[in-house]
Amino acid sequence: MVDYVADYLENLEQRPVYPDVEPGYLRSLIPTEAPVDPETYEDIMKDVERVIMPGVTHWHSPYFYAYFPAASSYPAMLADMLCGAIGCIGFSWAASPACTELETVMLDWLGKMLQLPECFIAGTQGHGGGVIQSTASEATLMSLLAARCKAVRQVQASNPTKLEAEILSKLVAYTSEQAHSSVERAGLIGGVTMRKIPTDDSYAVTGDTFKKMVEKDKAAGLIPFYLCATLGTTPSCAFDHITELGPICKDEHMWMHIDAAYAGSAFICPEFRPLLNGVEFADSFNFNPHKWLLVNFDCSALWVKKRSDIIGAFKMEPLYLKHENQESGLVTDYRHWQIPLGRRFRSLKMWFVFRMYGLNGLQAHIRKQVSLAKEFESLVRADKRFEICAEVIMGLVCFRLKGSNELNQTLLKRISKSREIHLVPCQLSDHFVLRFAICSRTTESHHIQQAWRHITQLTFELLQEPAH
Amino acid sequence: MVDYVADYLENLEQRPVYPDVEPGYLRSLIPTEAPVDPETYEDIMKDVERVIMPGVTHWHSPYFYAYFPAASSYPAMLADMLCGAIGCIGFSWAASPACTELETVMLDWLGKMLQLPECFIAGTQGHGGGVIQSTASEATLMSLLAARCKAVRQVQASNPTKLEAEILSKLVAYTSEQAHSSVERAGLIGGVTMRKIPTDDSYAVTGDTFKKMVEKDKAAGLIPFYLCATLGTTPSCAFDHITELGPICKDEHMWMHIDAAYAGSAFICPEFRPLLNGVEFADSFNFNPHKWLLVNFDCSALWVKKRSDIIGAFKMEPLYLKHENQESGLVTDYRHWQIPLGRRFRSLKMWFVFRMYGLNGLQAHIRKQVSLAKEFESLVRADKRFEICAEVIMGLVCFRLKGSNELNQTLLKRISKSREIHLVPCQLSDHFVLRFAICSRTTESHHIQQAWRHITQLTFELLQEPAH
Repeated sequence: MVDYVADYLENLEQRPVYPDVEPGYLRSLIPTEAPVDPETYEDIMKDVERVIMPGVTHWHSPYFYAYFPAASSYPAMLADMLCGAIGCIGFSWAASPACTELETVMLDWLGKMLQLPECFIAGTQGHGGGVIQSTASEATLMSLLAARCKAVRQVQASNPTKLEAEILSKLVAYTSEQAHSSVERAGLIGGVTMRKIPTDDSYAVTGDTFKKMVEKDKAAGLIPFYLCATLGTTPSCAFDHITELGPICKDEHMWMHIDAAYAGSAFICPEFRPLLNGVEFADSFNFNPHKWLLVNFDCSALWVKKRSDIIGAFKMEPLYLKHENQESGLVTDYRHWQIPLGRRFRSLKMWFVFRMYGLNGLQAHIRKQVSLAKEFESLVRADKRFEICAEVIMGLVCFRLKGSNELNQTLLKRISKSREIHLVPCQLSDHFVLRFAICSRTTESHHIQQAWRHITQLTFELLQEPAH
Repeated sequence: MVDYVADYLENLEQRPVYPDVEPGYLRSLIPTEAPVDPETYEDIMKDVERVIMPGVTHWHSPYFYAYFPAASSYPAMLADMLCGAIGCIGFSWAASPACTELETVMLDWLGKMLQLPECFIAGTQGHGGGVIQSTASEATLMSLLAARCKAVRQVQASNPTKLEAEILSKLVAYTSEQAHSSVERAGLIGGVTMRKIPTDDSYAVTGDTFKKMVEKDKAAGLIPFYLCATLGTTPSCAFDHITELGPICKDEHMWMHIDAAYAGSAFICPEFRPLLNGVEFADSFNFNPHKWLLVNFDCSALWVKKRSDIIGAFKMEPLYLKHENQESGLVTDYRHWQIPLGRRFRSLKMWFVFRMYGLNGLQAHIRKQVSLAKEFESLVRADKRFEICAEVIMGLVCFRLKGSNELNQTLLKRISKSREIHLVPCQLSDHFVLRFAICSRTTESHHIQQAWRHITQLTFELLQEPAH
């Protein structure tokens, strides 16, 4: 399997990035039931090529430019093998002390790489600290649930007879209209109103707009309690103005969560760190090393200023999960920090990656990918048929053909159909826009040049047609 | 790493099952910050033995009898390596068609192994089907949220002006007082009342008790909407009477979810399948192949009768996640079935395990572990100082010294301190009880005999002391 994996990754460029299969293709290729008797490994591996590979979208192909990157590195894969072998389910300190303790220290290491304010670092005395969540969606949900619990308690402190249901019906959360769909979903799950804040012409939320919405809601007798600000939105990698939003949240006693799922990794570079200024106002901060920091999925890092806020929201203590040390105040039982009970030894991946790359290696990875995006941006800007639709700050380029949405939809359809490169669209100010995200660790300048030649060739053919 | 993993697992017996470390042990063993320059793999592996292993609770040691088993097998580990290499994030069909399609078919294979009613099988025409969740906690939460959404819509269908918050305040969910703590937690997250149903003298929920509670709540103007029944409770592996509970849920238009997290794997054996009778009344059914079916964590299998119920609860469609085939009705976008957005290619683990063991091999694994539990039960029953506290049906033996809770607490403390075997307690009818769960794939009769010799030796010493 090690050989297969190495061959797969080293020769990935030769496979078409996007599969040529129709929905339902797989079912007819394998039996309808599990075998009664064992089969050999060799038979299964033949089927990997026959059944699986034809239907794989190759996220680590250098021609994959869709969504955002999914991290992949050999150190992370090695650590994941070790994680699978140890196979502990680290829901409490006692369930495997190393699993919990390495995680706390790795989140401290990473927090320091990002120069997070001291209050987010666990250390030996801190009230804050970090935890690995599976995804940013879950980190958002956890922060919203913790904020909800805190808000209900605050209201009940002055109105002890007020019912929780009544309070919930008045709570209002806020996020950017450009925020990821999982933020709206967190509101639905939590049963609270989620307002979408209009953005400015760079697709960012500003303090003024937010403040007006909060004041309007308060005047209507509602209770603003939570803001999810985004640093690096999914459609265009826009940055909400957290230095303006933070003080408003502070004044209004609202929980500020910052979702930097994609862009967060870049804050390990001093030149990008200013974009994180204002994080000192946040109650919780999250980004995904499994996107852009070479730690394979899943590894989403969440920090909170006050551990007690997040733990207190759902602490449950059945006897079969109790252990001797838990009341000492020294231990962390991460099951209280997350939705699932079980958890893998994921901090091993961080440890291996941080050590085998070093901070220098990680910074070099970020800088290289940003420079590739800038290179692609230059190519687009040099072609008058195209326009850039949002400032290129990190590894994402939003662009489109000058012209109708239909024209751009047709172009994207032809790109998808050709299967040479893979990208997905987004919507910005009613425009249908193409997103070109630098994703694979192995993408080089010549891949970018090749991708652009391919796009311009398809464009040339498209614009030749009588309809255009 | 392959060699390290094989050596670790094959020689695990020689390591003490439970670590001898104090909270905070790890931090001082490693630097306070990540290195700036890369380090070698060899240096890291030295630290695995120096820093990590001393703090690991070895879940796959044949002397580990705590909690419930965490599955571990070489086929699953091989598949996980492939999963890491492919590294797709299968939130939609288009994000990697093979990832979605293999999952649907594997859940069908597994459903057929369990002889689930046809309505839970996706096939090519079905309305039901299965999905891999990370944990049973998440499966419970998803089912509760889907039920909540359905209940709100039902009430609003006849009272369109009724506010959601008002309806939520009247919804009542039910589960056994013996149910896992994550069920109560799902109620907290979902913002609904969760009632704990008292159990009979075998720690099971019966129809009569449940029916009375439902009627009382209805008489008080509340809306019973959800039951989480358990097959194989965590404390004692008790089985709720689902053939009685199912018809009540049906009459009351309540959602019945069945949580068989541990015991579910055994239903692949015909002799245990009768315990699943009544599943035909369920709206959703869940168990964890990552517990007892040799598929490494995480792999929790959830089936629903109506896909539309679970999908409809939170469907969100931003443009960057849309794809051409999604409206065809033929494709599954699993992101609508779960809390997180991202997801790994976990069905590979099922495929490898089902094929390399075959149904026969999997059944043999279950039967062997049950017989080991029966063997331990016989040892306990033959010693008049001890008593068995719950019927031994699967791989769990609940036992205690006849005498006070303090005596049993002391015995467990000494067992833990000796670090030769590892087990955890539970509470049954105010009794402090020791749980002996057959966990490791490599546990054999001689380990059980050795564990019992160890327990009786500590018991002998304890009872010799003047205080007893």
